[in-house]
Amino acid sequence: MSRQPDPNRRSEQARQAILSAAADLCAEVGFAATTVEAIAARAGVGKQTIYRWWPSKAAVLLEHMQRARETSADFPDTGDIRADLLAQTTAVEALFASHSGAIWRGLLIAAQSDDIAADGVRALLEKAVTDATKRLSTAQVNGELRADADLDMAVEIIYGPLYHHWLLRARPVPNGYMKEILNVVFDGLNPRRH
Amino acid sequence: MSRQPDPNRRSEQARQAILSAAADLCAEVGFAATTVEAIAARAGVGKQTIYRWWPSKAAVLLEHMQRARETSADFPDTGDIRADLLAQTTAVEALFASHSGAIWRGLLIAAQSDDIAADGVRALLEKAVTDATKRLSTAQVNGELRADADLDMAVEIIYGPLYHHWLLRARPVPNGYMKEILNVVFDGLNPRRH
Repeated sequence: MSRQPDPNRRSEQARQAILSAAADLCAEVGFAATTVEAIAARAGVGKQTIYRWWPSKAAVLLEHMQRARETSADFPDTGDIRADLLAQTTAVEALFASHSGAIWRGLLIAAQSDDIAADGVRALLEKAVTDATKRLSTAQVNGELRADADLDMAVEIIYGPLYHHWLLRARPVPNGYMKEILNVVFDGLNPRRH
Repeated sequence: MSRQPDPNRRSEQARQAILSAAADLCAEVGFAATTVEAIAARAGVGKQTIYRWWPSKAAVLLEHMQRARETSADFPDTGDIRADLLAQTTAVEALFASHSGAIWRGLLIAAQSDDIAADGVRALLEKAVTDATKRLSTAQVNGELRADADLDMAVEIIYGPLYHHWLLRARPVPNGYMKEILNVVFDGLNPRRH
């Protein structure tokens, strides 16, 4: 009995090739110069293959970001909230410093004028906030966080500085940045009582 | 003796008219659709008058932002750092909710691809960070802040959440948002010891 090629597997391989081509291209030439034509040429597929699965280049790059984030920036739960936040935010730091950082920056900008990018970025950000809130909520129940802390705000206090530094001030994130941020966020700016 | 018109005063009036026209236009039609031609028409001056003073629309809008920030978001120093930060960040909240918010959003996006916008935005952000750091430094000397706090990071922890909420998640800033943020930032996420 001869083996038939599995069409699902072939589809997934083609999708993966398109996602990689789009990510490499965006890192090389920037978001604005990345076109569906150029992604298709690099992936060795026709434009119509891309449009069968995604409505625009923003949608392709959003799926790349979603996969990158799922692969590298999931929330651990070791029972130690500070250690787990440090591990996860350090992974986000690394993601921002990689090719995916340039792609995410392009998408955040495109989101201000392109509806597909805006919806996708919002969904990714809200997913990130929800994941973080869930992990913080367990910590709050376990007495590791102030009982009265608003967790949605806590997430913004933890991730906001990273975006302020990397996206707005356009500065490379120094090693250990998130460790210092978490120290202040947990211990507070008030002088320590001895 | 008849009074001569003061040319400096006339220039300042024309500059002010151009800045107001640019700000109103940007709030109405958005940053992308705001052109030097349209600003000139609205201010009742020729295009060349604008180009005599500013190299581009981004430069005009940057000067508007700089003036708006100087007028409304200066740092008070009453000797109480939490009260002063609350007053100043509440003024920034209000600025973001006003016409200037739409202009600042447009400039932050333009900064990713336009050199004049990028330099101007960087200068404004670094000025804001320096002003805040200076006020925090006085507080640190007075024992109102942890002696070991890195003040540049403290500024990012205070303003980062506001940008994360307003710029990235594109959510209106609720009343009292900065008050809650400052409570967490000063007291920390650690459970309170009783």
